[in-house]
Amino acid sequence: MRQSQLLSTTLREAPAEAETASHRLLLRAGYIRQLAAGIYSYLPLARRVLHKIERIVREEMEHAGAQEVLLPSLQPADLWEKSGRYERYGPELMRLQDRHRRPFVLGPTHEEVITALVDGEVSSYRRLPVTVYQIGTKFRDERRPRSGLLRGREFMMKDAYSFAAGWTELDDAYQAMFSAYHRIFERCGLRFAAVEADAGSIGGEGGTHEFMALAESGEDWIVSAPASGYAANLEKAYTRRADSVLDTSTEALEGSPRDWSADLPFTRLDTPGIKSIDELTAFLKVPASRIVKTLIYKAGQQVAAVLVRGDDEVNELKAAALLGVDEIEMIDAAQAESLGLAVGFIGPVGLKLTVLADPSVMDMGSAITGANEMDMHLSGVVPGRDFEPDLIADVRLAKEGDLDPQSGEPVVFTRGIEIGHVFKLGTKYSEALGAMYLDQNGQQKPFIMGCYGIGVSRLLSAIVEQRHDEQGIIWPEGLAPYDVHLIPVSVKDESQMAAAEELEQILQKLGFDVLMDDRDERAGVKFKDADLIGCPVRLVVGKGAAERIVEWKERAAEGKEELTFEEAIQRLKSRRR
Amino acid sequence: MRQSQLLSTTLREAPAEAETASHRLLLRAGYIRQLAAGIYSYLPLARRVLHKIERIVREEMEHAGAQEVLLPSLQPADLWEKSGRYERYGPELMRLQDRHRRPFVLGPTHEEVITALVDGEVSSYRRLPVTVYQIGTKFRDERRPRSGLLRGREFMMKDAYSFAAGWTELDDAYQAMFSAYHRIFERCGLRFAAVEADAGSIGGEGGTHEFMALAESGEDWIVSAPASGYAANLEKAYTRRADSVLDTSTEALEGSPRDWSADLPFTRLDTPGIKSIDELTAFLKVPASRIVKTLIYKAGQQVAAVLVRGDDEVNELKAAALLGVDEIEMIDAAQAESLGLAVGFIGPVGLKLTVLADPSVMDMGSAITGANEMDMHLSGVVPGRDFEPDLIADVRLAKEGDLDPQSGEPVVFTRGIEIGHVFKLGTKYSEALGAMYLDQNGQQKPFIMGCYGIGVSRLLSAIVEQRHDEQGIIWPEGLAPYDVHLIPVSVKDESQMAAAEELEQILQKLGFDVLMDDRDERAGVKFKDADLIGCPVRLVVGKGAAERIVEWKERAAEGKEELTFEEAIQRLKSRRR
Repeated sequence: MRQSQLLSTTLREAPAEAETASHRLLLRAGYIRQLAAGIYSYLPLARRVLHKIERIVREEMEHAGAQEVLLPSLQPADLWEKSGRYERYGPELMRLQDRHRRPFVLGPTHEEVITALVDGEVSSYRRLPVTVYQIGTKFRDERRPRSGLLRGREFMMKDAYSFAAGWTELDDAYQAMFSAYHRIFERCGLRFAAVEADAGSIGGEGGTHEFMALAESGEDWIVSAPASGYAANLEKAYTRRADSVLDTSTEALEGSPRDWSADLPFTRLDTPGIKSIDELTAFLKVPASRIVKTLIYKAGQQVAAVLVRGDDEVNELKAAALLGVDEIEMIDAAQAESLGLAVGFIGPVGLKLTVLADPSVMDMGSAITGANEMDMHLSGVVPGRDFEPDLIADVRLAKEGDLDPQSGEPVVFTRGIEIGHVFKLGTKYSEALGAMYLDQNGQQKPFIMGCYGIGVSRLLSAIVEQRHDEQGIIWPEGLAPYDVHLIPVSVKDESQMAAAEELEQILQKLGFDVLMDDRDERAGVKFKDADLIGCPVRLVVGKGAAERIVEWKERAAEGKEELTFEEAIQRLKSRRR
Repeated sequence: MRQSQLLSTTLREAPAEAETASHRLLLRAGYIRQLAAGIYSYLPLARRVLHKIERIVREEMEHAGAQEVLLPSLQPADLWEKSGRYERYGPELMRLQDRHRRPFVLGPTHEEVITALVDGEVSSYRRLPVTVYQIGTKFRDERRPRSGLLRGREFMMKDAYSFAAGWTELDDAYQAMFSAYHRIFERCGLRFAAVEADAGSIGGEGGTHEFMALAESGEDWIVSAPASGYAANLEKAYTRRADSVLDTSTEALEGSPRDWSADLPFTRLDTPGIKSIDELTAFLKVPASRIVKTLIYKAGQQVAAVLVRGDDEVNELKAAALLGVDEIEMIDAAQAESLGLAVGFIGPVGLKLTVLADPSVMDMGSAITGANEMDMHLSGVVPGRDFEPDLIADVRLAKEGDLDPQSGEPVVFTRGIEIGHVFKLGTKYSEALGAMYLDQNGQQKPFIMGCYGIGVSRLLSAIVEQRHDEQGIIWPEGLAPYDVHLIPVSVKDESQMAAAEELEQILQKLGFDVLMDDRDERAGVKFKDADLIGCPVRLVVGKGAAERIVEWKERAAEGKEELTFEEAIQRLKSRRR
């Protein structure tokens, strides 16, 4: 490919909204362009990398015995009603009607479609287990699309589904995918970890692991305990708090505005304009751990209050699961007012909503809460006496300082990017859709299913997050859009161009992908662009052209060397895997 | 691949609604399954064929200098409003809103997106021409999806777009794609023709050709005139009618219920319950050519009447173009009644609608029309005197018996399947979107564009339409899901299985795709399935297994031969292109 004809151009600056390195670099180097929030066009450089990732994925899937299919994005809503996900999935599910007003969804995953399909093809245990996969487009209307390809609304995914006769067969299929995922991410040159994960909206009964690419910019937190080997997604992590029962000694209570003995009724506190936990702690001079944080969420059709201690955050995924929905969303001020709620002063006492409380709230003994009245809080509120939650369950987000329940040691927080996910689904979908096989005894049984995803387009970003420097991207061998970036210093120098063209042809015949920078630009500009684009080897044809001497520079290393064409070719060959 | 593990099963019968051979065979052989009207899942056999077609398309696109991109399906409506297509495209365009109620469309093509993208990357004539392509999913909400993959609502397409500085550059880009299309369809083993075509909703100023696969089951008609070399899609065909002026001799008028001299006013005819042209001709004993057919269409926001002679049909594409929309739809009885129209008795006299008339209607001299009153027609209506159309233009469908305007010879009708389409778009989109480049004189000029499509999934069906027999599909070399269908006669015979496995391994090492029928079925069942699936070569390992003798049978030929393994391998190698 001649760079002068390449569709994309490099940019000096990335748009201000690009916050992560991969987002900035993929934009600057001309790999992707945004069409709308969370929706990107892949330019030729990115399309080439995607093809190379796809090939690795296909090879490992075939190696694991999976068969490739291609399933529609447009899926009839009635299929989703059968599985129950039409309601549960919430606003992330993109919905539309066809010209006859029949409701459809745009597939965010394909459990329903593949279950119905396999049900039609496979009727006997003799043809099980079977694992199918596809590489295709997925649609999810993310609330906050961000970071380029890291969280998009239309993206490329590899999804696989296994169908088994019995749980042991499922374990085998799961393990085959688990191993394939390891090989895929290794071949992509990634540093990653497999951690226990939350099943999210897919649901399911068995185990589930997430594969996380380790990266400072990752939006996911991995909570791990080296002592016990525990590793989980923050959303899934169950930890023990270091101070699960509050210190109720007299000294600890000093500075409290009221005695908090359970023998006394709660009292009212004037707190004019004091709404947030921070404002309250400052105004009342109490630690946040003495205040109940009351948050109001929309969960499907219902509105519910979630209570955590003032020094904790709500784990919204846990809360959603406990409330029986896939996604909850905090209500806004207007909605709160229409419900007659005193925004900033809401509390559980006398609250006419479903109330979900973390156990640590119940351990507070006495607490400060909103009074459900403007500019007013309550002090000396005793949970269990003054209010009774509808449900008491772990709903707090694990945090630094928490302890591993197993070893008692403090947990470690690391950031990661979710790049893959494997689930044991069990019979959730097969039962809902009536997808059955005949077992050895002639009995109808629901398929035991697993599902397995890889964010193919997200991988592009995850790799760049791990492999870049100030100057640009550093692609691993075999994934770069081009193996060799060939740069004649001066395109006006006929001997340089002739030598570069000769080398280009030799390399192409040997099967190397070559990008030749034939632009009439200063060498410095070309080198900068080469660093930005990130091909593994840069070959510069300059003054040594007549002697067929080329400058060898690896993107991932510092040194430069002068080599003959033959030496350079030999070295490229030897780097091939 | 072992057939016992293959996801799909063959079916004895195809569903009754499958009318074309390709639809029936692709269903019966287990290539595709319908999810909803016009929406199909591709099973492993079909996915493999698609990959092989995609590879041919990619190779020829790269050979023609096109660069691959991948553009989003979700496209913001405002981009489509700029091009004017948001309104014009009509109900075929699938529309939806995201969670913030922002309107989007699901791309049926990508002119808007690619024009905006290229505009951002290319600013100077020096980087032109550039042609980009993608292979991806398209969405079109067809009014009547049918024939399996021949007319679907979600389908796979290769679309390419060229951007040029000037018309000569566009001609070159167009010609490069035109040639590439020839090579692609030849490599797919198709019989096809390139014909003049209607630009449809894409619009544009220059030429446009359709590539038609010749097939009796095709839903498109090709109108050609061998004498002049004219060939056009029926929708585009402009022909001369053999009897453009009616015979007005006294004899010809015999049997007419009224004298039709233009000197006399029209008169009313009682026609109780007589609505259709057929009923009228029988009741009044007049030829259909004396009756004006008045059809009422919805064209965007307006309702219009289209007049043709009773023996003609309306060319709805021509009518839509004349009415300034992309698609028109006949109104239904309820709509007609709400407009106060007397369904079955509508006519142009006194009609308060936009009226579009074919010139042949104006040549009728005197005609029978609906009276716009129940059970009543008018006779002796003189077009131009008793009613004045808003527009007189060719709006009839060419039909057998018509003449080629150039040679005067009768035109020939042949059926075809549209498999490709090349357009010269000109500046339609670049002007609408303000997509400009700087020319040699430093002037801002709109890109001169072309666009080029191939129905990749439709090709699958088109190939099967041309290549099948009573028993099943006959794939051409290189496109079949597997090159070799290897069949051990009895899987319980150890020596047969061992020999078959040995041959399977040798062939796979040589790079052949092998489907081994390891099912415990009678040989007859296996042979039937092999014929249905349609791999080019069937190798049967039976009694000669111990001597490494195999039966060679080509799907496309009658004879069988006994060959040694080595001979069979040699023959397979020699068939490779």
